[in-house]
Amino acid sequence: MKFEVVSKDNESKARAGLLHIGGKVIETPVFMPVGTQGTVKTLSPEDLREAGTKIILANTYHLYLRPGDQLIKELGGLHRFTGWSDPILTDSGGFQVFSLADLVKIEDDGVWFQSHIDGAHHLFTPEKVIKIQKNLGSDIIMPLDQPVPFPSDFVIVENSVDKTINWAEKSKKTFENEPSVINENQSLFGIIQGATFKELRKKCILSIVEMDFPGYAIGGLSVGEPKEILYEISDFSTDLLPEEKPRYLMGVGKPEDLVYCVERGIDMFDCVIPTRNGRNGTVFTFEGKLVVKNSEFKDDKKPIEEECLCYACRNFSRAYIRHLFQAGEILALRLATLHNITFYNRILREIRFSIIEGNFQFWKKTFFEKYLLK
Amino acid sequence: MKFEVVSKDNESKARAGLLHIGGKVIETPVFMPVGTQGTVKTLSPEDLREAGTKIILANTYHLYLRPGDQLIKELGGLHRFTGWSDPILTDSGGFQVFSLADLVKIEDDGVWFQSHIDGAHHLFTPEKVIKIQKNLGSDIIMPLDQPVPFPSDFVIVENSVDKTINWAEKSKKTFENEPSVINENQSLFGIIQGATFKELRKKCILSIVEMDFPGYAIGGLSVGEPKEILYEISDFSTDLLPEEKPRYLMGVGKPEDLVYCVERGIDMFDCVIPTRNGRNGTVFTFEGKLVVKNSEFKDDKKPIEEECLCYACRNFSRAYIRHLFQAGEILALRLATLHNITFYNRILREIRFSIIEGNFQFWKKTFFEKYLLK
Repeated sequence: MKFEVVSKDNESKARAGLLHIGGKVIETPVFMPVGTQGTVKTLSPEDLREAGTKIILANTYHLYLRPGDQLIKELGGLHRFTGWSDPILTDSGGFQVFSLADLVKIEDDGVWFQSHIDGAHHLFTPEKVIKIQKNLGSDIIMPLDQPVPFPSDFVIVENSVDKTINWAEKSKKTFENEPSVINENQSLFGIIQGATFKELRKKCILSIVEMDFPGYAIGGLSVGEPKEILYEISDFSTDLLPEEKPRYLMGVGKPEDLVYCVERGIDMFDCVIPTRNGRNGTVFTFEGKLVVKNSEFKDDKKPIEEECLCYACRNFSRAYIRHLFQAGEILALRLATLHNITFYNRILREIRFSIIEGNFQFWKKTFFEKYLLK
Repeated sequence: MKFEVVSKDNESKARAGLLHIGGKVIETPVFMPVGTQGTVKTLSPEDLREAGTKIILANTYHLYLRPGDQLIKELGGLHRFTGWSDPILTDSGGFQVFSLADLVKIEDDGVWFQSHIDGAHHLFTPEKVIKIQKNLGSDIIMPLDQPVPFPSDFVIVENSVDKTINWAEKSKKTFENEPSVINENQSLFGIIQGATFKELRKKCILSIVEMDFPGYAIGGLSVGEPKEILYEISDFSTDLLPEEKPRYLMGVGKPEDLVYCVERGIDMFDCVIPTRNGRNGTVFTFEGKLVVKNSEFKDDKKPIEEECLCYACRNFSRAYIRHLFQAGEILALRLATLHNITFYNRILREIRFSIIEGNFQFWKKTFFEKYLLK
């Protein structure tokens, strides 16, 4: 993996880059749709490509439990299994263990949990999580970390930071020693924890950066803290992260968050908002969001967004999509998801272009004049 | 609408034809996927075209209740509304009234029923059903008929046949007198009832054919009668129907039924089997059907069917599709549906080609040597 910053905004930390992964080039800033179970819900790989997606995220926790990383390895790895031939980032499973699993028990060496599917007991260690991701063959893999809920006491966060640092070392060692059978171009990112405590964030960053990873993820945000804190911690963190490495803000966010966080030096995002909201009948446009399943759209001949070139907007009216939602038709979920992913990609492509053209601040001003924050 | 028989089998009543509808040409025999609510469940119009579909069916009953034929008219008709620009056949709603609605009350002039959605009372008359379909702007429209359950007594069936004949006359009058605002190329087919009584089928056919429709549908079958009776009544009916008009067997059927009924002179089919079975995890191949969600396929690297060129078979293994079903992912339903529709279209295309080549009997023999009836 190679990352290069190709252009920088003069008045902020926003930057446009290129992420080279095994022969593929990803323009940054980039949004990674969430494909929890090896599929971005409702979309095919072809739909994703049409929407402009170049990299997706898949969940280690889910794929480990079902269908199992061993099976995926036997079937040739995650790319072959899912039919998605472009890059895939897999998370560490840490977040899901704490948010989805039952009876979580944290030990020094790892974390015990019960599967949310069948209640079976499992242990995630830093070593095991790396081995799982080697089996999956994803392009960017993440080390086991320990996120904490918001708010958490300083001592608890400090402890989670120490564990995250300790586990990162173990992860790196395993990553370097375990053979890469499925994908020879895997990279391991470092994850920064520390919740909302700058002191702990700094401690974590210094230790993790010291280990020298090809990219850094800011974790433990977007877990209920106020938006100003999300922006402030992102800002604080990117100041301490190396300029020449990609920075990935995990689990963020809304369209406006993409703008604010690119401005603070973030290059990569993932979030369930465009997909989950789409399935719930909420779609995004440059004039804000619409609940397209609402009755106000029942005879609206316009597409979701006039300027959008996605398949949904080229072919269907709001009235039809609203009808599909009313009638409980699956096509509704897909069209809304497809539009939302396209919208997220459009925002970041516009941002990137404006950075390169040297007018990101103007773009941002224009964007927020039209975009209604609801 | 114009229909021409281009080739006939020497040893059976099987025929290959061309159905010209408003500038579009449909090769027959043809299968019409069911798009109950103005969408073939899980598929986009683009998916359908990729699967080789040239004409779909939509349900008058459902669209009348939701979103309403007036709204669809205001939005430019069903083609514009749904984004499906190829021909659409709409049924009369008769079958749904008897199978879905509550408190059905048949009168001489029509049928009262309660909506299965909100319990509201509605009246379908032959005249109203034609007006609804004029609003929808479908290409082939069907008159209100009165199907009966299987088995039914002779007197009941006789009564339903008389009503069907009487309503067909009224339908034709309304069809000819009502302006076609949405679609100037609409055609009205005649429907034959008579259940399993040949005498009543004959009576119905003679009366309906006397009225001279551009095509004839055989209704009231595939409602639980033994398969031999379905084939026998189809056979009996096509003997009495004019050679130069298309014959549509409503609600049929399984892959083998397509073969047996083309052999008996049928040109058009519709059925929920490929779509409904697909959503339930059952897929069809030339070697019979597979329950792809079963655990036996959990590590099966093969596509659903090696020779199939559909998007599902070109890109995904049985193991992946099985995983998607296990994980409750919507993409599973779509891939299985897409394959099944493609399979139905392939069967009929192969049959058509074999008729033209003069080897339908050989094709049929070869087909049943491989196709396992389960």
